[in-house]
Amino acid sequence: MAEPTRARPAGLSRRRLLGGSAAVAGAAGAAGIGWGAATLTHREHDRDPALDTVAFYGAHQAGIATEPPGHAAFVGFDLVAGVGREDIIGLLKIWTDDASRLTQGKPALADTEPELAARPARLTVTVGFGPQLFTAAQLDDQRPHWLKPLPPFSIDKLDAAWCGGDLVLQICADEATTVSHAVRVLSKHVKSLVSVKWVQRGFRNAAKGQTMRNLMGSVDGTVNIAPDTPDFDRLVWDDGGYRPWLAGGTSMVLRRIAMQLETWDELDADGRAITIGRTVDNGAPLSGTKEFDEADFQVVDQYGIPKIPPSSHIARAHHTRDEERFLRRGYNYDDAPAPGQVSNSGLLFASFQRDIDAQYLPVQQRLAEFDALNQWTVPVGSAVFAIPPGVPGPGGYLGQQLFDSVATR
Amino acid sequence: MAEPTRARPAGLSRRRLLGGSAAVAGAAGAAGIGWGAATLTHREHDRDPALDTVAFYGAHQAGIATEPPGHAAFVGFDLVAGVGREDIIGLLKIWTDDASRLTQGKPALADTEPELAARPARLTVTVGFGPQLFTAAQLDDQRPHWLKPLPPFSIDKLDAAWCGGDLVLQICADEATTVSHAVRVLSKHVKSLVSVKWVQRGFRNAAKGQTMRNLMGSVDGTVNIAPDTPDFDRLVWDDGGYRPWLAGGTSMVLRRIAMQLETWDELDADGRAITIGRTVDNGAPLSGTKEFDEADFQVVDQYGIPKIPPSSHIARAHHTRDEERFLRRGYNYDDAPAPGQVSNSGLLFASFQRDIDAQYLPVQQRLAEFDALNQWTVPVGSAVFAIPPGVPGPGGYLGQQLFDSVATR
Ligand code: HEM
Ligand code: HEM
Repeated sequence: MAEPTRARPAGLSRRRLLGGSAAVAGAAGAAGIGWGAATLTHREHDRDPALDTVAFYGAHQAGIATEPPGHAAFVGFDLVAGVGREDIIGLLKIWTDDASRLTQGKPALADTEPELAARPARLTVTVGFGPQLFTAAQLDDQRPHWLKPLPPFSIDKLDAAWCGGDLVLQICADEATTVSHAVRVLSKHVKSLVSVKWVQRGFRNAAKGQTMRNLMGSVDGTVNIAPDTPDFDRLVWDDGGYRPWLAGGTSMVLRRIAMQLETWDELDADGRAITIGRTVDNGAPLSGTKEFDEADFQVVDQYGIPKIPPSSHIARAHHTRDEERFLRRGYNYDDAPAPGQVSNSGLLFASFQRDIDAQYLPVQQRLAEFDALNQWTVPVGSAVFAIPPGVPGPGGYLGQQLFDSVATR
Repeated sequence: MAEPTRARPAGLSRRRLLGGSAAVAGAAGAAGIGWGAATLTHREHDRDPALDTVAFYGAHQAGIATEPPGHAAFVGFDLVAGVGREDIIGLLKIWTDDASRLTQGKPALADTEPELAARPARLTVTVGFGPQLFTAAQLDDQRPHWLKPLPPFSIDKLDAAWCGGDLVLQICADEATTVSHAVRVLSKHVKSLVSVKWVQRGFRNAAKGQTMRNLMGSVDGTVNIAPDTPDFDRLVWDDGGYRPWLAGGTSMVLRRIAMQLETWDELDADGRAITIGRTVDNGAPLSGTKEFDEADFQVVDQYGIPKIPPSSHIARAHHTRDEERFLRRGYNYDDAPAPGQVSNSGLLFASFQRDIDAQYLPVQQRLAEFDALNQWTVPVGSAVFAIPPGVPGPGGYLGQQLFDSVATR
């Protein structure tokens, strides 16, 4: 099949649009609005952070080692029946071209709202492949062994509407309008090939250089692996030893985890601290006093009780072996509540790791077995994706390493 | 009925929480994450705008003449059956107290996530009364005549799920987490008295001092009435001549208007310009060249055709009499699309005016009759509210003027 075309439909005729029957309304226009003089004085001094961009080309896709901006949308797509390898390559070329422009503050080709591209606000577009994409592309033998739906856990109450997907877009930026425009452009340019399975929007706010708080009020993201360190490179980026096409890529686990805030409210700050293993006010481990103090799970209080309860979330989640570490890069969500409810909030838990089975699963299994936090959190969505490497430079396309590897054999 | 109490439930016991059966996990904690050294260098230089506050007390409620921040949630509530005047007063006292604290970056009383209050980000909380609140309070004779559901329009495709409400909260701030926290605190503190009818979240982004764009790509909000001008005071704030309790108050119309972006895409920039009556690129009226040029509806081109088509949105929406003007303060929305759809976007159109019948209705009726834009927009929700005046200072409560006016007669 030919690469889908994206030519702009001819504009509706001016005549047709002018054909309204209305009479001319009153003649005087009103003056422009100034919401307050204070606003305007900022202009000369502040550099507008919404003009900041994140590089698109590179060994890795952006949006993983990138400091998370304030807004995200995760969009899951299913391939339309009959879509095969060449269509998928066409789709990936479109997404590559669109993302290479939008992330740099330039309109996509045939962008119908080019002005909405002018504020990139650190936009990143990260593309991932679900398990079935490999089947559709007749590349089952290239699917990584860890790319399969997570096993069911006793704690899960999964809603199929939030699960799976043949493709994912993770779109992040500091402005919601930027995210919205990118989601729309990227979705509609390939709409003949895919259907939207789910859209999950999230946000995270924090002072620059500080750790965000989730909607339970906890500092969330303290213990993590820092980009541009040997640990990160080893634990997140694939080295191609197993699947050569994946070198520089990784995997994403996306779990939609609802928070039971009504009952969480019954817990005071002490109760919350021993549930997490860290204080509410500054996120310090209960064995220490400052956020970045290393948690010491052996320290006991005067009664011999561990200061960080063994049942606490961090005691259970903490890696027991170095290979159990991964990058967490989640977002809060807060959707309209169901009838009779006050809220519908939680965490879009997103983690990145080279090998889901080796790194993520043991931790998730341990938490499913026991975690004091489980009383207030319920996984309602689950999806896994292989994240192909970045596009090294203009001319290439996302996932090319996968498709080239088979074209030449 | 007594004012609802809000004492915090006693914390779950430490013992109960420690009762997990888990073993101690590995001992070594990981180091804190630095998403990039560049981040930290900003800290000393940038004042954090998320610490900015908007005054709560005053003759008028905040959130109307206030420059709109980036995020909003509109929450509609219905009173629970049997709730009467004293309950409503209790509820309003709670909201007043909560809003007076949260907007200043302080936790609400019994705030279960006090840390989420620390970034007010220009938070405003604006409270409004729906038509039925007056009946519940046995104050039918105090209801303004214009406070009734808008008449049906031929263009409407209203979904009851987005219509009406006995009370509204308009909550605006520059950070989504701040909005989320305020919505939750204010909703749950009165949950025995109301049920949430709808929550509508929106966003708007623009460089400081510039006009936002909506999701059709148009500059939206150019012609408006500027706060702190005699026009604004006359057109927006009630002077108490008709309903003394309303002096300093106003009304809000909230219309949820879906955009048919799939077909809007078929229109090129010229088609869009003549639909709106303004250019896409800088929002200038077609009779001029710059955004704030006054629209001249009489100017014709070389063929005698009006440069601003009489059928265009601005020609139809433009006031024919001075009293038809009002403040527009809308937000974009972009929710998850329905199955088979690519997007679900539109405008949360919010307008403020002293008298809905005299100011808003003639314009809305004219647009319903004919507006070139109607081909791509569909009203799906509609609600009207009386906005009581502000709380002059500590000790008072929102709506007190209404309840005092009857207590003393
Ligand atoms: C709504 C669900 C969850 C919430 C609210 C939550 C919250 C937290 C919080 C507050 C911390 C402590 C601060 C930090 O280091 O970030 C933490 C740590 C952590 N969480 Fe979670 N978490 C959730 C789900 C999960 C899941 C599903 C996993 C993995 C399967 C996970 C893995 C971790 C890990 C590995 C740590 C660091 C542990 C250490 O100290 O070594 N969390 N989480
Ligand atoms: C999704 C629906 C709508 C969209 C996308 C929209 C968009 C616009 C745009 C782009 C402008 C020109 C720029 C400006 O002055 O702000 C405008 C002007 C205006 N709109 Fe709308 N609008 C919508 C609905 C409405 C409704 C429901 C009303 C009132 C009932 C309304 C009343 C006005 C008024 C009064 C003006 C200024 C006209 C003048 O130049 O005097 N609009 N609108």
